[in-house]
Amino acid sequence: MADTTNDAVPVDFRTEPARYRHWKLSLDGPVATLAMDVREDAGLRPGYELKLNSYDLGVDIELYDAVQRLRFEHPEVGAVIVTSGKERVFCAGANIRMLGQSSHGWKVNFCKFTNETRNAIEEASAESRQTYLCMVNGPCAGGGYELALATEWIVMADDANTAVSLPEVPLLAVLPGTGGLTRLVDKRRVRRDRADFFCTTEEGVKGKRAVEWGLVDEVVPRSRLLEAAQQRARALAAKSDRPRQAKGIVLGPLERTIDGDRIAYPHVTCVVDRRRGLAEITVAGPTTPPPADAAGVAAAGTAFWPLAVARALDDLILHLRTNEETIGLWVLRTTGESERVAAYDRVLLDHGADWLVREVRLYLKRTLKRLDVSSRSVFALIEPGSCFAGTLLELALAADRSYMLAGTLPDDDRPAPTVRLTGANFGAYPMINGLTRLASRFLGEPGRVDDLKGRIGQDLDAAAAAEAGLVTFAPDDIDWEDEVRLALEERAAFSPDALTGMEASLRFGGPETLETKIFGRLSAWQNWIFQRPNAVGPKGALQLYGSGERSDFDRRRV
Amino acid sequence: MADTTNDAVPVDFRTEPARYRHWKLSLDGPVATLAMDVREDAGLRPGYELKLNSYDLGVDIELYDAVQRLRFEHPEVGAVIVTSGKERVFCAGANIRMLGQSSHGWKVNFCKFTNETRNAIEEASAESRQTYLCMVNGPCAGGGYELALATEWIVMADDANTAVSLPEVPLLAVLPGTGGLTRLVDKRRVRRDRADFFCTTEEGVKGKRAVEWGLVDEVVPRSRLLEAAQQRARALAAKSDRPRQAKGIVLGPLERTIDGDRIAYPHVTCVVDRRRGLAEITVAGPTTPPPADAAGVAAAGTAFWPLAVARALDDLILHLRTNEETIGLWVLRTTGESERVAAYDRVLLDHGADWLVREVRLYLKRTLKRLDVSSRSVFALIEPGSCFAGTLLELALAADRSYMLAGTLPDDDRPAPTVRLTGANFGAYPMINGLTRLASRFLGEPGRVDDLKGRIGQDLDAAAAAEAGLVTFAPDDIDWEDEVRLALEERAAFSPDALTGMEASLRFGGPETLETKIFGRLSAWQNWIFQRPNAVGPKGALQLYGSGERSDFDRRRV
Repeated sequence: MADTTNDAVPVDFRTEPARYRHWKLSLDGPVATLAMDVREDAGLRPGYELKLNSYDLGVDIELYDAVQRLRFEHPEVGAVIVTSGKERVFCAGANIRMLGQSSHGWKVNFCKFTNETRNAIEEASAESRQTYLCMVNGPCAGGGYELALATEWIVMADDANTAVSLPEVPLLAVLPGTGGLTRLVDKRRVRRDRADFFCTTEEGVKGKRAVEWGLVDEVVPRSRLLEAAQQRARALAAKSDRPRQAKGIVLGPLERTIDGDRIAYPHVTCVVDRRRGLAEITVAGPTTPPPADAAGVAAAGTAFWPLAVARALDDLILHLRTNEETIGLWVLRTTGESERVAAYDRVLLDHGADWLVREVRLYLKRTLKRLDVSSRSVFALIEPGSCFAGTLLELALAADRSYMLAGTLPDDDRPAPTVRLTGANFGAYPMINGLTRLASRFLGEPGRVDDLKGRIGQDLDAAAAAEAGLVTFAPDDIDWEDEVRLALEERAAFSPDALTGMEASLRFGGPETLETKIFGRLSAWQNWIFQRPNAVGPKGALQLYGSGERSDFDRRRV
Repeated sequence: MADTTNDAVPVDFRTEPARYRHWKLSLDGPVATLAMDVREDAGLRPGYELKLNSYDLGVDIELYDAVQRLRFEHPEVGAVIVTSGKERVFCAGANIRMLGQSSHGWKVNFCKFTNETRNAIEEASAESRQTYLCMVNGPCAGGGYELALATEWIVMADDANTAVSLPEVPLLAVLPGTGGLTRLVDKRRVRRDRADFFCTTEEGVKGKRAVEWGLVDEVVPRSRLLEAAQQRARALAAKSDRPRQAKGIVLGPLERTIDGDRIAYPHVTCVVDRRRGLAEITVAGPTTPPPADAAGVAAAGTAFWPLAVARALDDLILHLRTNEETIGLWVLRTTGESERVAAYDRVLLDHGADWLVREVRLYLKRTLKRLDVSSRSVFALIEPGSCFAGTLLELALAADRSYMLAGTLPDDDRPAPTVRLTGANFGAYPMINGLTRLASRFLGEPGRVDDLKGRIGQDLDAAAAAEAGLVTFAPDDIDWEDEVRLALEERAAFSPDALTGMEASLRFGGPETLETKIFGRLSAWQNWIFQRPNAVGPKGALQLYGSGERSDFDRRRV
């Protein structure tokens, strides 16, 4: 299979509305409309045309940007209508030629990002109180319907042309893997036998049956579609707690410099060590005290330290995932003062009811979740000069493993490192399983989480942190260098695939949610199918699509 | 990769203690001991030696048989010690050469069966009150430790030689895929960072640290190991509700004839239609009234209709899965009288407290679960002369789709088919997600399940059954033949892999359990890894194991 997509110029996830080629964002008081109007000739990579409002990563990067901006820049918006800007089609889903020519890694990474964006849309509805609904104004297939499924209300035109469908299985021999199968039975709770029929029916389901089966919420004649969607949107917006009169903050261009193997943002730097197969990521704590209140946060805008860190980490994770595939281990460090981090955490918590402070917290939450679901090993190193406190302690708790130096190092006059819990560790940043990282950590001893609440604000040295279960290992200066070096070398030597499967299985104990099902189960099956000759072999359905040739399947059931 | 394993003589899952080559079952009042003592030269397939108490499918078939027999033949047994019959090793896990030479399908199928057996061991502890514990009397690695994890108590020798380990990732570039990763974090609730370290440490963990980390429950000096295990077993057995004085029933040889493409058991027949790629399975209802009470059930023994059906279906499912890989669609029918089936259901429910009646119900439950997790499409056809009532209605509810004839067929003087709910549909046979098939079906409308309770005992015709949501489609005689034929043809034509992923995603909505996580998430990741060159390619770790050659991994992280 041609593996051209990853070798091209690096993907840049930064964009802004003025540069959008595929989406039109329009605003009408409390209702925004996001219209998909994909430029056929503007694919992110050469080799395919984005016909019928089909999408590739480039289209989805713009969608992600739009969803982010609506949160931060438009406090007045309480509902968002997702629709198509084309006359005759809603969306045909992910572009098939693009999938056909992509490497396995590109496909998997693309699906992960699109999944994260759809999950973020649901989170925007539930937590930012910016409720998404979908106006299906033409055929809505595959990833197009999966986008609709991520919204809270689907209104569809009742005409001969318009249907929802998930034709991946019959047409392409792959799954509707961007949440489609999971959302059908677990979000919309479509009866499983009907879901089975629906997912094997190329032409999909339309009209009354689509409503009766729960595939959409409402069908209306095309002449009344816009009116129905807008009316619903206004009603949803009226229930939002977002402040109509507040002023948003503009997400200006994210500063980033890439200099050889060094990537730098404000507060975050990363050095890629190709020889050792790892990336060393350092997050700097704040150097100034936090604003006193929500108005101060608004005044600081993107310079507000937690927001700046979220933006930098978010971009860095996406960059490393997409452009640095062979770097399998991310090593996290922090530098700065715990007390400063704790002061910012207090602002986030004390003013958490403010819409903007809430958005900053939710952005940190999403960024930490993105870290959790990244298919990279993550180790945290807790060293002198670090500030693993509160929000930054979450980085160590998100790591597969952490090493904390017990005491000091020779020829280093900095004091022994400590870690510190803040209120932010007890609910601000739930993982995709709905639990805090502490609760996930102590599934077997839930009482420990309550005990730890009593230690908020204490600076715990390595012995205390290990005893409290907050770090994995606490070697002293005699063992530190060798133990850490060996651990990193060993990790970087293991099979990347086995590590991916292992980490996906160990990171999310406890309860399951739509999100864990999507990343843990649906994606795993899709990845498996993305390896199977019936889909991706020379005679596989994904390769032959549109050629007129018929797939020749290996009929063995596995 | 050599793909010899599936082309050899068919696998027969039927065995009995007199024919065991790998396990020794011994009985001591309320405590049984199952000692693994694998014959190196007695692999199920040629090409590998079962060294160090490693296992292949043949070893596990005997284990499965032993677990079944202990339930039915030994009501007096309340606890079962699993241990090794070898001096110097507990168990090295699944045989690596066997895995290395097996086809993808064989590996996946093997893992599914071993998973089902370990789940059945847990069910025996919880529901048959025959509690399994594990005496680790030597190195216990990989699948060996996964077997231990399926028991309720692990006591380990405290010596320099004995450790538990999951070395799959570092050694073989695959996962501990027989429940290991899931049971670590979700059953034993080992802290995820410790689990991460443990699963990447070839030599494993022993002694006090194994207890402290929750990997085992207790370590004792080797000199006291047997005593400690037996004492624990007697204590566990004392808490069992199994009747010490009752007489078990012997699971005599299962009658089966295979005549070309026709497989027949008492009450169950199957015709394999290779041209159409499907198997037509017919279950015959009882022809005689049920015994009046539990004593009558015991007197009937394996002739008791529900037990006979469970045994036949269980064997048939295993046979088709393993020996008929290209038959991707199972079509289920029943013949007989609904009232007779309902009468048997009443016995199962009215005498459900009896140990043997309980075992029969549990066996039906496990067999239906085996159907649910089979990677085959399942369609039910509800036709004149059928008896989809109660226990047999579960077959239609387990199906991906059902077609019920509305009315009669020309030239067929049998009355229109009906379906009937019995009490057995409301709790006797939970799926792996812990819900009944009705509750799983009506996740979106839980009130329907209660409403349906009011219809127990009614014979519902196609219109009523469709309205009640019990069947998918109810075509009349004009459409029946074409609609069913097209549905079967279409299903048989789709990609087998895409169907596997789709069905695994649609069948188990709602809550997640250890079992759904094992089959839905862990297995999916393992299957993916089982396709990856880093594991199974010519330079993959699974192929090179033992050769002294080093794997050459593709370092791209996916």
